[in-house]
Amino acid sequence: MQIGMIGLGRMGSNMVLRLLRAGHQCIVYARNPDSMAGLVAEGAIGASDLADFCAKLETPRHLWIMIPAGAVDSVIEGLLPHLSPGDTLIDGGNSHYREDLVRAERLALEGIHYVDCGTSGGVWGLERGYCLMIGGETQVVERLDPIFASLAPGADSIERTAGRSGPVSRSEMGYLHCGPNGAGHFVKMVHNGIEYALMGAYAEGLNLLKHAGAGRQDRATDAETAPLSHPEHYQYDLDLAEVTEVWRRGSVVASWLLDLTANALAEDPELKGFSGRVSDSGEGRWTCLAAIETGTPAPLLTTALYERFSSRGEGDFANQILSAMRYQFGGHHEKPAD
Amino acid sequence: MQIGMIGLGRMGSNMVLRLLRAGHQCIVYARNPDSMAGLVAEGAIGASDLADFCAKLETPRHLWIMIPAGAVDSVIEGLLPHLSPGDTLIDGGNSHYREDLVRAERLALEGIHYVDCGTSGGVWGLERGYCLMIGGETQVVERLDPIFASLAPGADSIERTAGRSGPVSRSEMGYLHCGPNGAGHFVKMVHNGIEYALMGAYAEGLNLLKHAGAGRQDRATDAETAPLSHPEHYQYDLDLAEVTEVWRRGSVVASWLLDLTANALAEDPELKGFSGRVSDSGEGRWTCLAAIETGTPAPLLTTALYERFSSRGEGDFANQILSAMRYQFGGHHEKPAD
Amino acid sequence: MQIGMIGLGRMGSNMVLRLLRAGHQCIVYARNPDSMAGLVAEGAIGASDLADFCAKLETPRHLWIMIPAGAVDSVIEGLLPHLSPGDTLIDGGNSHYREDLVRAERLALEGIHYVDCGTSGGVWGLERGYCLMIGGETQVVERLDPIFASLAPGADSIERTAGRSGPVSRSEMGYLHCGPNGAGHFVKMVHNGIEYALMGAYAEGLNLLKHAGAGRQDRATDAETAPLSHPEHYQYDLDLAEVTEVWRRGSVVASWLLDLTANALAEDPELKGFSGRVSDSGEGRWTCLAAIETGTPAPLLTTALYERFSSRGEGDFANQILSAMRYQFGGHHEKPAD
Amino acid sequence: MQIGMIGLGRMGSNMVLRLLRAGHQCIVYARNPDSMAGLVAEGAIGASDLADFCAKLETPRHLWIMIPAGAVDSVIEGLLPHLSPGDTLIDGGNSHYREDLVRAERLALEGIHYVDCGTSGGVWGLERGYCLMIGGETQVVERLDPIFASLAPGADSIERTAGRSGPVSRSEMGYLHCGPNGAGHFVKMVHNGIEYALMGAYAEGLNLLKHAGAGRQDRATDAETAPLSHPEHYQYDLDLAEVTEVWRRGSVVASWLLDLTANALAEDPELKGFSGRVSDSGEGRWTCLAAIETGTPAPLLTTALYERFSSRGEGDFANQILSAMRYQFGGHHEKPAD
Repeated sequence: MQIGMIGLGRMGSNMVLRLLRAGHQCIVYARNPDSMAGLVAEGAIGASDLADFCAKLETPRHLWIMIPAGAVDSVIEGLLPHLSPGDTLIDGGNSHYREDLVRAERLALEGIHYVDCGTSGGVWGLERGYCLMIGGETQVVERLDPIFASLAPGADSIERTAGRSGPVSRSEMGYLHCGPNGAGHFVKMVHNGIEYALMGAYAEGLNLLKHAGAGRQDRATDAETAPLSHPEHYQYDLDLAEVTEVWRRGSVVASWLLDLTANALAEDPELKGFSGRVSDSGEGRWTCLAAIETGTPAPLLTTALYERFSSRGEGDFANQILSAMRYQFGGHHEKPAD
Repeated sequence: MQIGMIGLGRMGSNMVLRLLRAGHQCIVYARNPDSMAGLVAEGAIGASDLADFCAKLETPRHLWIMIPAGAVDSVIEGLLPHLSPGDTLIDGGNSHYREDLVRAERLALEGIHYVDCGTSGGVWGLERGYCLMIGGETQVVERLDPIFASLAPGADSIERTAGRSGPVSRSEMGYLHCGPNGAGHFVKMVHNGIEYALMGAYAEGLNLLKHAGAGRQDRATDAETAPLSHPEHYQYDLDLAEVTEVWRRGSVVASWLLDLTANALAEDPELKGFSGRVSDSGEGRWTCLAAIETGTPAPLLTTALYERFSSRGEGDFANQILSAMRYQFGGHHEKPAD
Repeated sequence: MQIGMIGLGRMGSNMVLRLLRAGHQCIVYARNPDSMAGLVAEGAIGASDLADFCAKLETPRHLWIMIPAGAVDSVIEGLLPHLSPGDTLIDGGNSHYREDLVRAERLALEGIHYVDCGTSGGVWGLERGYCLMIGGETQVVERLDPIFASLAPGADSIERTAGRSGPVSRSEMGYLHCGPNGAGHFVKMVHNGIEYALMGAYAEGLNLLKHAGAGRQDRATDAETAPLSHPEHYQYDLDLAEVTEVWRRGSVVASWLLDLTANALAEDPELKGFSGRVSDSGEGRWTCLAAIETGTPAPLLTTALYERFSSRGEGDFANQILSAMRYQFGGHHEKPAD
Repeated sequence: MQIGMIGLGRMGSNMVLRLLRAGHQCIVYARNPDSMAGLVAEGAIGASDLADFCAKLETPRHLWIMIPAGAVDSVIEGLLPHLSPGDTLIDGGNSHYREDLVRAERLALEGIHYVDCGTSGGVWGLERGYCLMIGGETQVVERLDPIFASLAPGADSIERTAGRSGPVSRSEMGYLHCGPNGAGHFVKMVHNGIEYALMGAYAEGLNLLKHAGAGRQDRATDAETAPLSHPEHYQYDLDLAEVTEVWRRGSVVASWLLDLTANALAEDPELKGFSGRVSDSGEGRWTCLAAIETGTPAPLLTTALYERFSSRGEGDFANQILSAMRYQFGGHHEKPAD
């Protein structure tokens, strides 16, 4: 079927390629015309501006927006004059699900349908397919089925879940209509919250393996250094690239994130290219905010988020307070770094 | 090659089957003769007691012990009179790596080699193969290579790690000589510590999805109940079996643990068969103890462990103290369960 | 000076008593006339309704509102027809500071001043005085100084902070103009967030002391129970009422919350009157929401909050998922409670 | 009564002064004779070596050891040849309670009594008195009562606990016989574990107050920076020295640690003298180890400990792994520090 794509960054342009390969007709638009050239060479139809973009789409139009969350509303405003009742806007980016609720209501006034679609897959999605978490009206989501089915990985990529039988469901193809508007981005939000903690779990464990030789170092014996009772228990020198590699097969901790970690450590076992300032881009925060608002305990998800904040120095003043307290009650002076 | 297996529980008997299928000769022994019958039918040779078991093994013997960690030392004591210098004992269970250090030293006095082998794979290992993390002397570990290679999943089960080239390494087959004695169980210990936090991450996220309809319930408005500012933001009714299914394909959180969670939810979406008392079996604790001793931050791994303790009621008294404090300073009375 | 007080619950009525004792004139109003009787006997002037209440106050009026956060806006609406430009409304309850921003703006349109005052002290404030954290316009806050000074504990209650000299500041009297509107409730919010974690710290430590005899119990030795390597290390039977008592004097952990804990344990060492379902009333949540929104790590504050959620069963489904996963990968069955 | 004190650092010498002032006879010894001079001037009797020290003490001797935990055993070995059956050794330092168990057993073979005494009070103890947590045989502890009573703060320092009546208990004087050997240091250990989390609670809260103006800064709008939805909610500039001061009186979070924090902020509101590398000296670790071994959830205590590890850079590699993973799945590049 025909679909328009606005936003041709890493995600958007790969999605267009995947749709073209599946035989769909893609009208594409991005502010920077250079980003369109490659796709046009692959068969996409470029548009010169939003008006042209909308004009090139048959009604009822299907427009997929794939841009940073902060820019979505202004693009929608730019599109509105060129849209007609019955058209459908799909936000495939990382919007907060609450924005979906507001947008869906506002667009409904114009007779325009809104679909929120959480999209996971990153730079690997072109090849692997994208996992799609969709919110919106049932009929509208149904109508877009050929698009979702082409973007998703399909059922054959892995073994079927035990206990499932009969015809393959859409979830088994890698896309799911989660519920009314916002439900798609809600599920994607929690997905990312989980992702933070999964990442943190591997990171903490590997960091501990890196400390397995702690007993081999000389250790200060001053009152400001906790003693290590049994240095002979910490004499190992473990090869983390090999450890992550061996865990990829047959172990309980095998995962795609582990595969990627093995990639990274195979390329650079010391990870010298990274200083350890870890960004967070919103969804992890929103997940924890939702946990707090609904009274749901989520200590792992939230601690993982806070570790990122700390990695960027946001906890430094708290640490200065701790040192100041220790000086106050015990006369303890801070130890300099080794 | 020939190997003896002591302990024919879920893990041990499946490992014998996998070894038999690979053409190895297996001498087996378990206290309960019934557990041997099935394996003998598949080609294993049963032994009537430890003496008979050792007599049936050619020297230098290779004996694999696959029993609960607490029973290993007494079995070793029982075996010792029947062993000869040059024999090798492999502990494939979940021993603490510190016990490996003690055992290796003690057995070396008798000229007997000791290998510690952390084994991951659970009830699925027969089919998928086992991930093996091995500690011991290089020559001894090399000699056992055919056994390890047969137990491990092999390289073909998944795609090769980016950045790896040349001949396939043992880690890519699914087994790794991690270092001297204890190193295998050390790596396995941290593997399980990671596992706890991975599991906790999914559990917290799915529990949050289950709370996505929090705004649909009537909410008490007394001073003991925190208000929910925007109930309209929490109106979803999400199908968790479908959500875990869709995440299996193409998403960043895809993993084997997620596959299993999807299995569980496909069978019983409400998980009515489980009350939520979660056991822990040692390795998670040892991981956190090692983190503390080496001064390595591991808040996610440790919080995941503590969540299990709490699930078993071990935090109840702490909660009673909190209620008692609240009563003391503010006259707050505890609210009964709904 | 003259002040009106609306809301005569535990907090409001004690504050009126404290103000009366300091020589202020208090006009009081509460829906339930019974709650006024005692105060009128002590010298307060009762009002029959909001109109009467406002009529009895000299202009410019000073009205202190001390009611549940959820009821403040409707009371303000009820008061507005009876107020005049130049009047001042003080919200001394536990409003979210964001509501202060909205209210201050709305009231400014009517020429009415708004002051937000976070009030700590609970049922003990009558005797100890109240700690006041105030937000609002400087001139307005200055004008109310006699009221704040009378409610606060005063400087003499404890030793002066090292490094302070010269005239006693208001903060040393126990009240502080923290900044513009919202600043008072913001500081009070974080105060309560800290309170949750302080409480949790004592609760966890005392619970651990309660487990100091863990080695004296028989311990199951099945595969679902982590072993306790050295039961001889956990043979103590500690008297928690005595421990909290001894910590009250000379120790680093001495605090008012500890005093209260000692009270509670002196009355009932087993805390049998409490089941351990711990409420939270908003501020702790708002603190953690602010931490997340500003990118500030607050793992202790947030974990303390989550422990409360868990105490009320909100983490049960997460635990069921963990048990279900363990069953899936290892065939582990849940252990029933002892 | 007469007592010998070995170790005249900050703690030991202040304790001798307090004992001298109470009329006790003190024999003192330290390696460095300079540290004895001041105390001798105050009436203590100096010793030239361990033999002289023991010779100057009447039998049965009472010797108090106040030195770093790591040096206690060698000092005991040095003392043993000069001791007689019936003598009593008190370890008032920060030994692990497990060492107490070993020492008590070993000394009992020589007929020598051992008392473990956890001592809290830091540099303030001379003036405030010391909180003493004592383990040992009842008769031996009773015999030392005059010493403990003089070191402790006494009952009058604060108000009596509600619900206590009758004669003042020793716990109300500030010292407690907690149980058999090890019980004193066990209680002191948990005391310090609690202390870490109390400190962390204040530190996190104050750090959050420091971020209360987060909305006033320009904020990058790239995909690596989580958006701040409502910068207008974070416009405060709070004076932390004043906030900690006001909390000291009448608030629920009042404590001695808060008093010290107010001291520190009064002296240096920016805490420029501290870089934020926070030491830990053993007890906090031991507390968490005990929590894990006994299966007691202690997430706050442990997270507080881990925050200290992280403050010293021990989590850096974990953060590098997170950045490497983000690069792998999403092509995200690390953002440099501002």
